[in-house]
Amino acid sequence: MDYTVEEKEVFMREALKEAEIALEHDEIPIGCVIVKDGEIIGRGHNAREELQRAVMHAEIMAIENANVREESWRLLDCTLFVTIEPCVMCSGAIGLARIPKVVYGAKNQKFGAAGSLYDILTDERLNHRVEVETGILESECAGIMQEFFRNRRKNNFSFKILRNVV
Amino acid sequence: MDYTVEEKEVFMREALKEAEIALEHDEIPIGCVIVKDGEIIGRGHNAREELQRAVMHAEIMAIENANVREESWRLLDCTLFVTIEPCVMCSGAIGLARIPKVVYGAKNQKFGAAGSLYDILTDERLNHRVEVETGILESECAGIMQEFFRNRRKNNFSFKILRNVV
Repeated sequence: MDYTVEEKEVFMREALKEAEIALEHDEIPIGCVIVKDGEIIGRGHNAREELQRAVMHAEIMAIENANVREESWRLLDCTLFVTIEPCVMCSGAIGLARIPKVVYGAKNQKFGAAGSLYDILTDERLNHRVEVETGILESECAGIMQEFFRNRRKNNFSFKILRNVV
Repeated sequence: MDYTVEEKEVFMREALKEAEIALEHDEIPIGCVIVKDGEIIGRGHNAREELQRAVMHAEIMAIENANVREESWRLLDCTLFVTIEPCVMCSGAIGLARIPKVVYGAKNQKFGAAGSLYDILTDERLNHRVEVETGILESECAGIMQEFFRNRRKNNFSFKILRNVV
């Protein structure tokens, strides 16, 4: 199923709400939703620190969520919306779940595997190819990340000053 | 911590026991254990069909298992033993869990991402490099896979004959 730009923005805003949940837990703020026939069937946010689980990226949580709801590992006819370009692990997982389309907000030049470091989703050698679209709400999706890292650097700096004082 | 060839074979036999569990459930027979200071702290087998979860490969189950036991997403000072070369998703997950060493039995020429299709574990651009060793109990690890696919082809063939008759 294809969606209009307005519909895609609605779903990306839902992914951004998930990123906000991660932010509240002081996690790198990335969020994801999986949509089937216009309905959200899986939601996820980065929860590595909160749950102390290395694989608990937004996309993995959303895929697990959708697998439970659909009672199937195959997420055919679904679109995955994620605020930031998926990493290697998540790109692999998207293919393994047979998701046919991914829409992401902003690129991840350092670790992205859907166009930046690798092109896992469109690799002809793998047994599942994924259509990729990017740029939906790009500035909002990048903005929440930039704010997080800016604050972290500031806090680290304050912490260093505090250590020098104490 | 480094292990002798004999110790590595002991751990790979434990990974093979996990692969046998997958086989009993008619899953692609891949198994994994994670070892820290000579002790197994995580075990996993492919359970995609059994659990209907797309990401439930042997390595992911073992990492999740070890994260819970260690109460930490970081699996420092651990060695991951897996019967078959990790795929893209699992190679990404191994790096994200900060596992420093992987030992695998047999190569996966079609989907392997630790030397075959990709070299994710040793990619200098990623923020964690993993030492990779291969060939421990290679023929046993490859053998259980070959047997599984041979039986599956035979069953598919019987099914086709049956369909022609019925």
